[in-house]
Amino acid sequence: MTAYRYYTATSLDGFLADEHDSLDWLLSQPTGEHSILPYGEFIAGIGAIITGRTTFDWVLAHDGVVDGAWVFTQLTFLFTHRGLDAPREGVTVVSGPPAGHRAAIEAAAAGRDVWIVGGGDLAAECARSGMLDEIFVSIAPVTLGAGRPLLGGRFDLELREHGTNGALLEVRFAVLGERT
Amino acid sequence: MTAYRYYTATSLDGFLADEHDSLDWLLSQPTGEHSILPYGEFIAGIGAIITGRTTFDWVLAHDGVVDGAWVFTQLTFLFTHRGLDAPREGVTVVSGPPAGHRAAIEAAAAGRDVWIVGGGDLAAECARSGMLDEIFVSIAPVTLGAGRPLLGGRFDLELREHGTNGALLEVRFAVLGERT
Repeated sequence: MTAYRYYTATSLDGFLADEHDSLDWLLSQPTGEHSILPYGEFIAGIGAIITGRTTFDWVLAHDGVVDGAWVFTQLTFLFTHRGLDAPREGVTVVSGPPAGHRAAIEAAAAGRDVWIVGGGDLAAECARSGMLDEIFVSIAPVTLGAGRPLLGGRFDLELREHGTNGALLEVRFAVLGERT
Repeated sequence: MTAYRYYTATSLDGFLADEHDSLDWLLSQPTGEHSILPYGEFIAGIGAIITGRTTFDWVLAHDGVVDGAWVFTQLTFLFTHRGLDAPREGVTVVSGPPAGHRAAIEAAAAGRDVWIVGGGDLAAECARSGMLDEIFVSIAPVTLGAGRPLLGGRFDLELREHGTNGALLEVRFAVLGERT
């Protein structure tokens, strides 16, 4: 069955990016040779991608464009109310609640999992629709005091696994549901 | 040498308390029999306490009053701009930057450590004054989306130790300094 997975990184105080949308505080951290869920292993299990507009634009601006193509080979569902200037191969522009696109997303995933790349509000919308099963988060040894929130809502999780990767603390949680 | 220690708990998204100053999300978590730093062991090494007003009032309202006395036997420095209605034994009311009270705090600690109970803004003020050496945080498997921030500023930390205690993930960080 297709699982929805939020694979991301955060500061200790729960920010995906600082106030200037910078990830310097994360990218400057040394990583080790071992991860409890190496990116290569993770991405091999992913059949479709969900992203919000800010995350999408950030990836494009930083390292997401290879000869003009979106870097991911998996079909990508871009949640945005603004259209793209030009169609981009492999990227489907959608809007409205994630649940309305669930069938299409799971058809694209074709039995593999779905990666929710970000941001925190879209991940929360997915969670409210029962479309978030797991959070895998690398916690950087930094506080930022302000920035883009990790997850925009109240949810109950369950700790499943943890370990270190260089300077980072990696933690895997199951998502139990919305907290009332 | 006296170390300044911030011993606290947070949601995964970096909140000490929710929007209604509730800790239900934390107090409902089952804890285990083992902790990497049991409270009893921690508090035995503490010679003085620093607290902000919101934290102080919360403790008093919830479990901090035993026959009218502040629950901690260590001399407590309460940072507040509002005075207390009546003097309270063992509690010294102070204001202004923590650095201005450093000598008095360390004299009170008498060679033991100082516990910064909270909140996050006072802990950050201490950190900016070089008066925060360690953060020990229990991370509850919950996101809150909003609430009282864990630490009000940008700081570099170093991961020192981690482990589980029931449903909680316990993590110990050294504080390296303010992040520029």
